[in-house]
Amino acid sequence: MTLNDLQSQLIPQIEASLKAKINAFDFNHTNQLKRMITYQMGWSADGAHDGGGKRIRPFLSLLCAGACKDQIEMAMPAAMAIEFLHNFTLIHDDIQDKSPLRHGKPTLWKKWGIAQAINAGDALFAIAQMTILKLADTTNEHICNLAASEFNQVCLHLTQGQYLDIAFESLDNVDIKTYLNMIEGKTAALIAFSTHVGGLAAGQTKDFLDLLSAYGKCLGMAFQIQDDFLGVWGDPLVTGKSTASDLLTRKKSLPILYGLENCPEFQDQWQKVPITAEYVLEMAKTLEICGAKKYVVTKAKEYTGRAFEILGQLFPKRNTYAVALKELTHDLLNRNA
Amino acid sequence: MTLNDLQSQLIPQIEASLKAKINAFDFNHTNQLKRMITYQMGWSADGAHDGGGKRIRPFLSLLCAGACKDQIEMAMPAAMAIEFLHNFTLIHDDIQDKSPLRHGKPTLWKKWGIAQAINAGDALFAIAQMTILKLADTTNEHICNLAASEFNQVCLHLTQGQYLDIAFESLDNVDIKTYLNMIEGKTAALIAFSTHVGGLAAGQTKDFLDLLSAYGKCLGMAFQIQDDFLGVWGDPLVTGKSTASDLLTRKKSLPILYGLENCPEFQDQWQKVPITAEYVLEMAKTLEICGAKKYVVTKAKEYTGRAFEILGQLFPKRNTYAVALKELTHDLLNRNA
Repeated sequence: MTLNDLQSQLIPQIEASLKAKINAFDFNHTNQLKRMITYQMGWSADGAHDGGGKRIRPFLSLLCAGACKDQIEMAMPAAMAIEFLHNFTLIHDDIQDKSPLRHGKPTLWKKWGIAQAINAGDALFAIAQMTILKLADTTNEHICNLAASEFNQVCLHLTQGQYLDIAFESLDNVDIKTYLNMIEGKTAALIAFSTHVGGLAAGQTKDFLDLLSAYGKCLGMAFQIQDDFLGVWGDPLVTGKSTASDLLTRKKSLPILYGLENCPEFQDQWQKVPITAEYVLEMAKTLEICGAKKYVVTKAKEYTGRAFEILGQLFPKRNTYAVALKELTHDLLNRNA
Repeated sequence: MTLNDLQSQLIPQIEASLKAKINAFDFNHTNQLKRMITYQMGWSADGAHDGGGKRIRPFLSLLCAGACKDQIEMAMPAAMAIEFLHNFTLIHDDIQDKSPLRHGKPTLWKKWGIAQAINAGDALFAIAQMTILKLADTTNEHICNLAASEFNQVCLHLTQGQYLDIAFESLDNVDIKTYLNMIEGKTAALIAFSTHVGGLAAGQTKDFLDLLSAYGKCLGMAFQIQDDFLGVWGDPLVTGKSTASDLLTRKKSLPILYGLENCPEFQDQWQKVPITAEYVLEMAKTLEICGAKKYVVTKAKEYTGRAFEILGQLFPKRNTYAVALKELTHDLLNRNA
């Protein structure tokens, strides 16, 4: 089976499990609260899939479990919990960033107001917790406890990354080291947990799990840096965002921080308020000339290279799932959207 | 030992444990996030207690554990988790209600902005989760898993109560049954869990735990109804709130809903916008004449009576903790602030 085959098989399975989980909760007097959650998960009112995310994190957990033990079912509660948690963070993120749209649809707070959106996020957080605790049924109580504790350590790490992200907005400049620290919390920590918990559910040892986390962390860092790359040099026809959108929205992403640190000409351009749609192409060009593009690509490749290296150590004898993991690692970092 | 003695002994112990827990987390690059949490917990920057809450919920958990087993330490992780969770809900509540003050100090969102306050609440939620999972050390992994699952069931229940509370604001009227449903989620569920988990940590059976929950639920309902009473007829010098503050802020509390349902004169008064400080005394009088005061007192007494009844069933042979529980039940429902 190729990565594509596994995707066609497992993503619908993840999707069905997520839906069954939400439907199992008693929302009696609060059906509208349930609707907010299903809306965020990307399901239309009649339950059909309606353009949520790619379920990449739970898919990663299942692949890692499968690569360890040739079966995936025992990791399903953790995989689902991660997707619920991810969506909880998106709900609160969108309020914090004042984002009106996600996946082309109004965000939860735009549709139901800030107060109800905060609350729906909290409900989804509680659901994520109950979901991961079901590892007690598919593994054992000891593994379940470990996984739940680590899950919440990651949640705390996420809020630390988010704290920095919000704080950065009101700063003139941010040094690159602090920025990498922030994305480690905001993006890499949950992806590292996704790979880690697959192995944990499969009963792997501490040393092996540390390596799995390290693999996931590299994957997460490279993923975010690639995102930052696409935010300046991505093809708008492919990404679905406007050209150099991170410049337009003045997002302090990695290439932009590099430019602010190393390129006086870019610093001058950045000072000009507002940055117009016509002007961003020139700014992207300045960034490229001063070495920001090369720097970002090199950085992403560093993490990617390390991810492949660890993958080789983890699964020298590769089964179907491990082969798919390698392919997925390649695809994630060579994507153009 | 009397209730007072136990309070002087256990509340400082709870307080010290809460502080030690927060200090044990690594906040390295995000000290300000830690400061938000300690601020919410009522601690000044140098760690002194600075007017947080009364820690009534964790105190209840410890008393229930003690009443079951004559010792309290094994329930401490759950007691702490409940206080963290309670404070997490207060952070988000204050944003949702746009409340500028709590315990006479600016609320978290007033001081640090909505985005950071949502995030600090989320961090405290994760901390609450990690804290309850420490029951594995003081009891065993099975009890720990059960407690953590029930804890999150309660979290979901809280968000359902909160959903209704927010939704009620934009409704002209709410029937009393739906209102009682709302406060069951918003207030009683966490108090019921506080009493329940004390017995769970002490290794009690399912039937006994159900009774403990029922006791806590009655306590929580009576507590909230007494709050509603004080919101209309409380002495402002004692409560620290303005006279008939719930009328002033148009809060749809139990006496007011009774008036809207049963008293045409009160309905007319309620229509007048704005309700002035001079006018509220007249309105409170109208409510009293039409039977709202009597109704609310009767309702509170119903729940209180049931609480005492269950307490007698639970602990026919009373130790120090059980005696204190009885005294506390009496005090909570006969308080005037």
